[in-house]
Amino acid sequence: MSKSAFTKAAFCYQDNRKAGRNMLDFSNRVKAIKKSDAGEILKLTAQPDIISFAGGLPAEELFPLTAVKEIAAKMLSEEGKKALQYGPSLGYMPLRKQIAARMNEKLHTRVTGENILITNGSQQGLDIMARLFCNKDDVVIVEKPTYLGAISAFNLSEVNYLEVESDAEGMNLTELEKALQSCDRVKMIYVISDFQNPTGMTWSLQRRKDFLKLVSRYQIPVVEDNPYGELRFKGEFLPSLQSLDEDGLVILLGTFSKTFAPGFRIGWISATEEIIEKCDLLKQGIDLASASSAQRIVSYFIDNVDFDKHVDSVRQTYAKRCDAMLAAMDKYFPDRIHFTRPEGGLFCWVTLPEQVNARKVLSECIEQKVAFVPGDAFFVSEGHHHYMRLNYSCADERQIEEGIKRIAHVLAQYV
Amino acid sequence: MSKSAFTKAAFCYQDNRKAGRNMLDFSNRVKAIKKSDAGEILKLTAQPDIISFAGGLPAEELFPLTAVKEIAAKMLSEEGKKALQYGPSLGYMPLRKQIAARMNEKLHTRVTGENILITNGSQQGLDIMARLFCNKDDVVIVEKPTYLGAISAFNLSEVNYLEVESDAEGMNLTELEKALQSCDRVKMIYVISDFQNPTGMTWSLQRRKDFLKLVSRYQIPVVEDNPYGELRFKGEFLPSLQSLDEDGLVILLGTFSKTFAPGFRIGWISATEEIIEKCDLLKQGIDLASASSAQRIVSYFIDNVDFDKHVDSVRQTYAKRCDAMLAAMDKYFPDRIHFTRPEGGLFCWVTLPEQVNARKVLSECIEQKVAFVPGDAFFVSEGHHHYMRLNYSCADERQIEEGIKRIAHVLAQYV
Repeated sequence: MSKSAFTKAAFCYQDNRKAGRNMLDFSNRVKAIKKSDAGEILKLTAQPDIISFAGGLPAEELFPLTAVKEIAAKMLSEEGKKALQYGPSLGYMPLRKQIAARMNEKLHTRVTGENILITNGSQQGLDIMARLFCNKDDVVIVEKPTYLGAISAFNLSEVNYLEVESDAEGMNLTELEKALQSCDRVKMIYVISDFQNPTGMTWSLQRRKDFLKLVSRYQIPVVEDNPYGELRFKGEFLPSLQSLDEDGLVILLGTFSKTFAPGFRIGWISATEEIIEKCDLLKQGIDLASASSAQRIVSYFIDNVDFDKHVDSVRQTYAKRCDAMLAAMDKYFPDRIHFTRPEGGLFCWVTLPEQVNARKVLSECIEQKVAFVPGDAFFVSEGHHHYMRLNYSCADERQIEEGIKRIAHVLAQYV
Repeated sequence: MSKSAFTKAAFCYQDNRKAGRNMLDFSNRVKAIKKSDAGEILKLTAQPDIISFAGGLPAEELFPLTAVKEIAAKMLSEEGKKALQYGPSLGYMPLRKQIAARMNEKLHTRVTGENILITNGSQQGLDIMARLFCNKDDVVIVEKPTYLGAISAFNLSEVNYLEVESDAEGMNLTELEKALQSCDRVKMIYVISDFQNPTGMTWSLQRRKDFLKLVSRYQIPVVEDNPYGELRFKGEFLPSLQSLDEDGLVILLGTFSKTFAPGFRIGWISATEEIIEKCDLLKQGIDLASASSAQRIVSYFIDNVDFDKHVDSVRQTYAKRCDAMLAAMDKYFPDRIHFTRPEGGLFCWVTLPEQVNARKVLSECIEQKVAFVPGDAFFVSEGHHHYMRLNYSCADERQIEEGIKRIAHVLAQYV
């Protein structure tokens, strides 16, 4: 290709700048986006010789590729051209019903297909939630720390945040009530109560109940992000917040990215019909509908394979990897370093002594060919430099032990 | 299922309302959404015995189902688990390159894969554009009339509109300049220069050039929505606005929904790398990435079938259907009724005498088992009751003649 219109355009921009003419002007929401270095770290760690605890990807070796091949062929034969046409913005009803049935079984909810709207992964659910409840400068209460992808989504609606600390049982309710009392612009509370990203922590049953009592008094919608709920590999399953909610305030976001495969981008919003109806109006403007073909593949997968058995194999693999990581940290990490002991999900959270900067540790670790995400990425507020998030789903036990050993070696200089 | 939490929730809401407590509060953007009756009309016309000119769907019988089956199997075999994993938010690079190459060939652009970001259909492109350029209360200039789905998307960013009339050659530039001079909050101009939805009209080459000269003086970004550009069945292909733009101001939105199949929800944004980089940041927050699997199916389809031949068969079918509709209107419609003569795309636009209300005509037409969309749905301003949009892509020639005959019969009472 020779010098393109776009190359020329770049020159034009500079000429205009000199001449003081109007420049291409982006919206405030775009100007405010800080390029997350999480993306940069992920790129860095995509080198094949690095042991990466940085990502949050499901383990590729567990994807049921053979089943997907068979199911794709079967689906296209049976569904025919309907699978290639536009579908309803609420989603493919058979899938909506399957999701409701599975949620009722696994998460103790009592929902029907009418309570479900299909999204492009739960990330789209996050965007829809902020656009549904928040005007510019409204406030979202989040856990401290919280999922950085949720912050990226909510930021696009130009909201502000109040962070609420958690203890071993879940969100600190005294602090939560203070936040609710102190601010009348709180429009939404965002939590991950099962195997939180980044901490791996799970709320106790009592804390769930007390949280909902408090929320009911203030009538604030709660977004329960539940990507990992089915991935419990230790302890007892606890009822989801939505299943305990009697006010219709809890919106649950689900996804097949962790239990099946993220490559179809199929997630869902579960909420009262009143809320789902509003989400439907948003979805129409946002992208009309999720893909007919992908929704049908997920639906056929659930119908045609033993989904429980499949999820169970994912769970067992992650259990082993988590155990390997905890064992290696017990063995190699200095005593003054603390870490969570997840009962499910994909992440461990490591607390270093306060004076240790995890970003400095990271740059040395990368030289040693091992990587993680510095914990400060998961806070809205500044600081918090002494945390690390470790993902254990994407490396095998041998790599995990080796990787932790290398991190421990770097840490030894700091602690 | 017994009485659910959600049934109870509904009661709680009422109790709270009586007690004067806080109620579930939605954002202003959601409160402002008027439930489009286009959706209602489409539902009504989904009855199998109705001849519908109301939708805007591509003809299902043209979907290359057999090829898709083969390609899905081939793709999954060759790509393996990568097709099931998360992919980059910019999109699958081989597809981005294929799109750039095809655009350069068909739309006379000079772009590379780096200028392309994959979206969920071009509807997501519309949402991204408004979020990229517009703050609340900023102004978007649109054609009068314009695509109602674009208005649904832009409304979510709480923008205002200025409508600019068109003549037979395209947008009226005197009016456009007046609009640009009168308002300093114009952040974006939205146009469909090829086979517009709803009018079926196409801008002349001279108007395209003059438009870009004007736009260059004001340095306002132009969103060129181009879903139908390849579907020209009469006359000569004209260069896209983006191909004529030397300022990097034109963003082209494309889609495979009309040339291949909408069920994969694969569209794209073509723009300068500066703009694509910002779109990428938005896309990350909005839904992380489009589906790895669907992107690869489209990519394999382009590589493995004669795409030109396929598009040509779509074109020929729509040409015949358009001809049938024009011939039937020539034959049956009263003289005082005017309509456009599209050279491509999916729609005809009918102008009734001013005193005739197309909604009244529609309700009688539905009794006669034929349907269309009343034209007022495509205006931002009130009024405009004497227009009808007719879609010819979804009925065969016999149905088209019969449907037009029935509409003519109803119209005869009004004119």
